[in-house]
Amino acid sequence: MHPSELTTGAAVRLAARNQSLIGPTPGLAMGFVQANLVILPQADAFDFLRFCQRNPRPCPVLDVTDVGDPEPRNIAPGADLRTDLPAYRIFHDGNLIEEPLDVIEHWRDDLVGFLIGCSFTFENALLAADVPVRHIEQGRNVPMYRTNRACKPAGKFHGSMVVSMRPMTPAQALRATTICSRFPRAHGAPIHFGDPTTIGIEDITKPDFGESVEIREGEIPVFWACGVTPQAVIMEAKLPFVITHKPGHMFLTDLRDYELEGA
Amino acid sequence: MHPSELTTGAAVRLAARNQSLIGPTPGLAMGFVQANLVILPQADAFDFLRFCQRNPRPCPVLDVTDVGDPEPRNIAPGADLRTDLPAYRIFHDGNLIEEPLDVIEHWRDDLVGFLIGCSFTFENALLAADVPVRHIEQGRNVPMYRTNRACKPAGKFHGSMVVSMRPMTPAQALRATTICSRFPRAHGAPIHFGDPTTIGIEDITKPDFGESVEIREGEIPVFWACGVTPQAVIMEAKLPFVITHKPGHMFLTDLRDYELEGA
Repeated sequence: MHPSELTTGAAVRLAARNQSLIGPTPGLAMGFVQANLVILPQADAFDFLRFCQRNPRPCPVLDVTDVGDPEPRNIAPGADLRTDLPAYRIFHDGNLIEEPLDVIEHWRDDLVGFLIGCSFTFENALLAADVPVRHIEQGRNVPMYRTNRACKPAGKFHGSMVVSMRPMTPAQALRATTICSRFPRAHGAPIHFGDPTTIGIEDITKPDFGESVEIREGEIPVFWACGVTPQAVIMEAKLPFVITHKPGHMFLTDLRDYELEGA
Repeated sequence: MHPSELTTGAAVRLAARNQSLIGPTPGLAMGFVQANLVILPQADAFDFLRFCQRNPRPCPVLDVTDVGDPEPRNIAPGADLRTDLPAYRIFHDGNLIEEPLDVIEHWRDDLVGFLIGCSFTFENALLAADVPVRHIEQGRNVPMYRTNRACKPAGKFHGSMVVSMRPMTPAQALRATTICSRFPRAHGAPIHFGDPTTIGIEDITKPDFGESVEIREGEIPVFWACGVTPQAVIMEAKLPFVITHKPGHMFLTDLRDYELEGA
């Protein structure tokens, strides 16, 4: 099936399940909410959910499964977290072990799945409002940076916030703030604009994750809390066993972007 | 100290701690966020946090303490949940056992405190925007009703949503919706207006909790998800041991109302 035919969350999940889709998900099923995936053993799950609750800008929780249940019943009934993403990552003790296309053989009865909101939701809203998004224009991954802003810790989970950056004119930045503030569960309004060193970023041309993008005359960098934060924090905690999505290979929910407005 | 001198969250907490304040908190420390309190053993805490995550309109979580820690470090550093509310309720197996002024002797190392957003935040915003709030005008407790809307269950926690009701003209209801949608962690926009039977309320003059208020010519009832929902659900689960605030006797945080906007 051609990607342009994948117009709903359910269609993308099915294509991932039968492995006709093994690539990244940006641009698929436009208007449906995409989500970051983190799967942890129950022993770590309450601490991690408390971490997310304390840091809702980088870690807006869309759904948490019951222990041992791979179905995110509240945002995608009938879906299966073990098969319905195009690609996964398996970590042992903080080290990347493999990138399988499904995690059926890794599944355990004590696992809990977390689905966390993603910037695609607000980027769609920005594009719909004619606010340009540079990395999409340039066909690149969004630039992301570690900052000096500490997250609020919970149990073994602690670390600094990771941010994404989009260059804009002041007028565009103000419009973007208005738009993004409507989506608290997709990282919400920006957390900083202007001087990158204020938040501990020394060289804006060298992102820690993703790719650098052009900042043009008259533009300033605008920074949003980023869904890579929980992944970075989890890596730092060196948990014995974690499953995540492969970057850019997200979980498609049944939620529509507008359902996250004000919620 | 006269209540009018209690102008900050910290001042209210201190007055509750030294028991010079043992009455209800509406109208105190205006502009500071007030919160519902639920304290549960760790064994029930992950299920309850998952219940709140799945039902954010009635159960918007402001803070969850570390296991055994009575200090809500993220929204009121230095506070003590065992002493800083004017009055508490202790439940055994779903039955109200006592209403003490502190819970020092009931505290245990396995307890987790949940602080949940409250309608006072949006009512202050409504009053500031000249949208009248009838039960405040009439000096009564807000009328609350059980509905036929099922909450999304999590573990042993399940039940129907409780709503609060404020009568308004259509113009006021629209304005109130705009204002309240800015406060997703204070129950957000209304969930229904008009015919009460649509959501399973048979007699609008007979609330299940609180007091009835006048609905005038040209007004319709407007319904919000209510923070009594988690308490009703907890009672139904008949947990061996639960502590809550006494109704109307809330926890005062250091958060300002505006900090909940869009967050």
